[in-house]
Amino acid sequence: MNTFGRKLTLTTFGESHGKAIGCILDGVPAGLSINEEFIQDELDRRKPGKSPLETGRKEDDRVEILSGVFEGISTGAPIAMIIFNTDQKSKDYENIKDLFRPGHADFTYYHKYGIRDYRGGGRSSARETAARVAGGAIAKLMLKEIGVEIHAGVCEIDGIKAGFHDFDHAKTSQILALDPVIEPLQKEAVINAKNSHDSVGGVVLATAVGVPTGLGEPLYYKLDALLAEAMMGINAVKAVEIGDGIATTHMKGSQNNDQITKDGFASNHAGGILGGISDGEEVVVKIHFKPTPSIFKPQQTINKDGTETVCKLSGRHDPCVAIRGAVVCEAMMALVLADMALLNLGARMEHLTTLYRPKKQV
Amino acid sequence: MNTFGRKLTLTTFGESHGKAIGCILDGVPAGLSINEEFIQDELDRRKPGKSPLETGRKEDDRVEILSGVFEGISTGAPIAMIIFNTDQKSKDYENIKDLFRPGHADFTYYHKYGIRDYRGGGRSSARETAARVAGGAIAKLMLKEIGVEIHAGVCEIDGIKAGFHDFDHAKTSQILALDPVIEPLQKEAVINAKNSHDSVGGVVLATAVGVPTGLGEPLYYKLDALLAEAMMGINAVKAVEIGDGIATTHMKGSQNNDQITKDGFASNHAGGILGGISDGEEVVVKIHFKPTPSIFKPQQTINKDGTETVCKLSGRHDPCVAIRGAVVCEAMMALVLADMALLNLGARMEHLTTLYRPKKQV
Amino acid sequence: MNTFGRKLTLTTFGESHGKAIGCILDGVPAGLSINEEFIQDELDRRKPGKSPLETGRKEDDRVEILSGVFEGISTGAPIAMIIFNTDQKSKDYENIKDLFRPGHADFTYYHKYGIRDYRGGGRSSARETAARVAGGAIAKLMLKEIGVEIHAGVCEIDGIKAGFHDFDHAKTSQILALDPVIEPLQKEAVINAKNSHDSVGGVVLATAVGVPTGLGEPLYYKLDALLAEAMMGINAVKAVEIGDGIATTHMKGSQNNDQITKDGFASNHAGGILGGISDGEEVVVKIHFKPTPSIFKPQQTINKDGTETVCKLSGRHDPCVAIRGAVVCEAMMALVLADMALLNLGARMEHLTTLYRPKKQV
Amino acid sequence: MNTFGRKLTLTTFGESHGKAIGCILDGVPAGLSINEEFIQDELDRRKPGKSPLETGRKEDDRVEILSGVFEGISTGAPIAMIIFNTDQKSKDYENIKDLFRPGHADFTYYHKYGIRDYRGGGRSSARETAARVAGGAIAKLMLKEIGVEIHAGVCEIDGIKAGFHDFDHAKTSQILALDPVIEPLQKEAVINAKNSHDSVGGVVLATAVGVPTGLGEPLYYKLDALLAEAMMGINAVKAVEIGDGIATTHMKGSQNNDQITKDGFASNHAGGILGGISDGEEVVVKIHFKPTPSIFKPQQTINKDGTETVCKLSGRHDPCVAIRGAVVCEAMMALVLADMALLNLGARMEHLTTLYRPKKQV
Repeated sequence: MNTFGRKLTLTTFGESHGKAIGCILDGVPAGLSINEEFIQDELDRRKPGKSPLETGRKEDDRVEILSGVFEGISTGAPIAMIIFNTDQKSKDYENIKDLFRPGHADFTYYHKYGIRDYRGGGRSSARETAARVAGGAIAKLMLKEIGVEIHAGVCEIDGIKAGFHDFDHAKTSQILALDPVIEPLQKEAVINAKNSHDSVGGVVLATAVGVPTGLGEPLYYKLDALLAEAMMGINAVKAVEIGDGIATTHMKGSQNNDQITKDGFASNHAGGILGGISDGEEVVVKIHFKPTPSIFKPQQTINKDGTETVCKLSGRHDPCVAIRGAVVCEAMMALVLADMALLNLGARMEHLTTLYRPKKQV
Repeated sequence: MNTFGRKLTLTTFGESHGKAIGCILDGVPAGLSINEEFIQDELDRRKPGKSPLETGRKEDDRVEILSGVFEGISTGAPIAMIIFNTDQKSKDYENIKDLFRPGHADFTYYHKYGIRDYRGGGRSSARETAARVAGGAIAKLMLKEIGVEIHAGVCEIDGIKAGFHDFDHAKTSQILALDPVIEPLQKEAVINAKNSHDSVGGVVLATAVGVPTGLGEPLYYKLDALLAEAMMGINAVKAVEIGDGIATTHMKGSQNNDQITKDGFASNHAGGILGGISDGEEVVVKIHFKPTPSIFKPQQTINKDGTETVCKLSGRHDPCVAIRGAVVCEAMMALVLADMALLNLGARMEHLTTLYRPKKQV
Repeated sequence: MNTFGRKLTLTTFGESHGKAIGCILDGVPAGLSINEEFIQDELDRRKPGKSPLETGRKEDDRVEILSGVFEGISTGAPIAMIIFNTDQKSKDYENIKDLFRPGHADFTYYHKYGIRDYRGGGRSSARETAARVAGGAIAKLMLKEIGVEIHAGVCEIDGIKAGFHDFDHAKTSQILALDPVIEPLQKEAVINAKNSHDSVGGVVLATAVGVPTGLGEPLYYKLDALLAEAMMGINAVKAVEIGDGIATTHMKGSQNNDQITKDGFASNHAGGILGGISDGEEVVVKIHFKPTPSIFKPQQTINKDGTETVCKLSGRHDPCVAIRGAVVCEAMMALVLADMALLNLGARMEHLTTLYRPKKQV
Repeated sequence: MNTFGRKLTLTTFGESHGKAIGCILDGVPAGLSINEEFIQDELDRRKPGKSPLETGRKEDDRVEILSGVFEGISTGAPIAMIIFNTDQKSKDYENIKDLFRPGHADFTYYHKYGIRDYRGGGRSSARETAARVAGGAIAKLMLKEIGVEIHAGVCEIDGIKAGFHDFDHAKTSQILALDPVIEPLQKEAVINAKNSHDSVGGVVLATAVGVPTGLGEPLYYKLDALLAEAMMGINAVKAVEIGDGIATTHMKGSQNNDQITKDGFASNHAGGILGGISDGEEVVVKIHFKPTPSIFKPQQTINKDGTETVCKLSGRHDPCVAIRGAVVCEAMMALVLADMALLNLGARMEHLTTLYRPKKQV
């Protein structure tokens, strides 16, 4: 239940205010150089408290590799990574231990399990996504070896849409904005939300370039289906589009079909996926995040015993979760693609005969 | 790769123009009355050729249960179902055997596998979804026993949106329309598309009422993530929304959070899912279908050997796949919910002690 | 629950006296020549009623491929196979419908599921193993392409042990005997059992030659563990040994360790597996079958309502299930090895870079 | 690949001489009291260096729970546990870094992965079994709640067999001996092996009492098949028997069938499992361990480059791995049974209707 993936599997553990969070990434092929600095850099991109636009919780998010790497190289054994929680202010949550915060998982966890670690949302906290980013970083290292690169950025905040998409700019932007022209307006929306003790939604665009043709296993591990699952499973995501997504429903077939020339596809409405299999074009996914449920305005709710009460949150929260969410989208995309690259091995008999025939040794 | 689900698993087989299609549904609890007529009725709702708005292919889609049912009751053994293909006109496909139809999976299957059953798209054909509907029908029978009902209908065709949603009307509508007022316009759009040898997109709304609180297994079998996967994996789907979906990104947190009263949630922007777990409200999913890729206008493409050519399709196709797709959405929703209802058993120790303690016999 | 394997998966269905039994074999790489005659030959080796030493049930066991093969070649789509039941004498079972046959699964199925298809044991019948043999036949075809061959034979019946192992002889022997000298005594034991309305146990030896080094995925898909699971899951099996098995517990480490020379291992006590991974030597498994539980002597038992009664079976049964069981052992071994050959793809980064780097197309 | 189990899953990580070993146990129902002392006690039973009959490596094996437990109670979230390695003498292994120790996994890991963590066998070391024992301890706590108890002991060492089985005695015996009369002879065999720089094999008997009828999921998660897999996957195990195992092959059917009276089964040759499902009797498994491959006598082997050399081990090793192995057998048995107890939920429709019908809330 806490494992993601098929041949490359990420199993995560940990709660927002427990001792540690972490993961076991299993299925990494032997022989990959594990650049620890890169993994830490990825975590740093996601870590909270980098700017006034983010939660004030300050976590170093220092990752430690516990296994699976020998002299800097992956051995084929599972790679365990751990991040100790440091800046836990569990007391912040005393006042909410008996009530259900609107828009949060408090209500459902309590009713499903009959017990709830209320400190910062416990297991349901987005803090767990740090483990995904750690796992995704290694997936990125794998993908790099086969020429695949992944980028994500924020294309919309509070309804303010990017006019164009500059992934290089997003890398340096405080809000991972794809459009430097629109960026100041988007920033302002975040600040306004924060100042009014509220929050705003946002949209992330994620792409992968260099994806080989043939990734995705029909009919039930289709690449687009798995990307949808991966993205919808990120905290606060409420919609996922592949390629032109919803816009395709307003086109005629003759407009939407990507015609094919001897130099490749003439357009990419499909977002790089046909029949659930990558077609060699850029893989494009759009991910829609609802506004952060943690807001500081008073809200109506009930206690565990059913009595009505007012939820008045304090503490530290992102006014727009889509921003740090973009880094998580990249990680999930990397995990899916690396997994599919592994699963596709064996699609043809010649994969077997090439490997085993000549020398009977692997 | 051709198995969907975790504890309730549907494994399908078959190609558009092979001998038969079918499935094995495994994990159905013993003691369920298997109403064969209901299964057939569900297939009849999906089957092609019922109206001039659909493909002219006429398949009886007569389903036969081969196993797992004894004297009308499920035994706990896998339930195999088979549908023989009858109205196959493989010759229709002779002219496309060497080229890749734009918008179809021809290109990707060929490049992945090095071989392609070109007759009607082979394995990639939406014909396979009949097997899903058969499996979904049994999932519906299971769900009915615990008070869950599933409905779907078409809320938009070619950009023409339903003003309101009447699921009862959809059941009798030729195009499964949710809004009888708008229905004639939507129908006209389909006919126009057909007449102009083109196709149109559409949007399906699917809901489940009576879903118990607690379904969905965090963090990687979240109910919303699995619904997204299930829906995005249906042929021609390009976007999936949960609850208010994209609209939530334009709200403030204070607007989007569903506040809680002693009588339940005051609103349902979340679409019945919080933190990946059902909250007892109606589960709401919106599914966006691209226009049918099979159109009769000439299109530019290439042959297997890379030479450019014109693709001129003939044959029998739906001008709007969203319509029959709605029935498939229901089936996938049923499969996901029934699976989650089973997986949730064991969420609490008392599930174990209640069953095993008193008499040590199950 | 009815699916075996990880990347090559066999999902079976069907009951002893239902309409049909069959399977879906998923994960077969595209491009394999599917020799239908070979599959039928394998089924013929297992099918009942070939000699007076076997059950009198006469089943043609004619297998039909329904999908996944196009013009004689596998396409990468799931391969469904079906065998219709023909010689069903369900009436034979009327007298046992309310009682539990000793040594059979009647008691446990009834208590687990609350319902039981009593005709010939229903789902628990060894008849299901025909589907395994069909799937195993295709696994053998895959393995042949990479130079692996599998053999099995009977090395012991009723305590009468083979002095040596001639797998070629086993192929022509009515009782699949490995030792032609001992064979008449073993045959006699079977006949005696039959004549005295009783049954005898037996032991099967199964080997695989040409297995490449590197198959088996530590730590929880070890080759020996999976072979043990595969074999122990065959009806009537009560013990499994790898290599010298139990005999190793009577050796000193210095005797049991297979020393290594520049020409390979100096001995093969390990049975071709070290640390759960194949070492290039012959893979050797010994499988112990209990005597057939169906005997014609009266036995004490109880009815569903708990009252004591006498179980007096009639009908048609093998006096020694190990004989036809040997064919099933081969099939399971083939399924495990082909699965592991696929899973091992991706053990090293160079598997990925070799496939994806040069031309980015698969 | 490093995950064991279906609904209760244990994912382990770590190498013999890495920073830490550990596991994530997922699927533990919420509401279980997690007795940390008990978990530590179990680890203490397995830990090395307790007596001169064991390896001299001294590991505290202090386990720390990192997640999934809140105020002493399981929350339904994954439970991560970590054990830091302390007494690592990696230098002991410098001399073997380029050669393959006979009887070990060095050869196969190197050929599979192309890289090998040679320090103490790396991932292939039996040190990993500490993580299994930690996970198994929690499985035991679960089972205790439903009345199941698990015991194991050593019944044979170097061919010296126990005359009877006293599991209480085994708990206090330095060599976990089941028969106090034979124990001194068995101990002597271990000491002799140690003194002669050699090692001996042994056999473990493991049983579970109080197992409810109905555990095991036919046809491919049969209880006996899963126990065989679980046991054969333990380091150095070469054979597994269920119930009377091999002895059943020497019986007639009339002797081996357990007849049924109104008070239960008249005998238990089957070892508590019929048709892969528990029948309510004691579940009995016998596990055969080869002699420890690490011996101090010189052995012939080759280097990575294929040149012949002599392997002369020093260091710290158990002369008989079956002894500490017995604790691991208990853990694996507990993991399998707890998993099956969870999987069996949902075998009947009434499991669903009982839980969901009355109040629609879980």
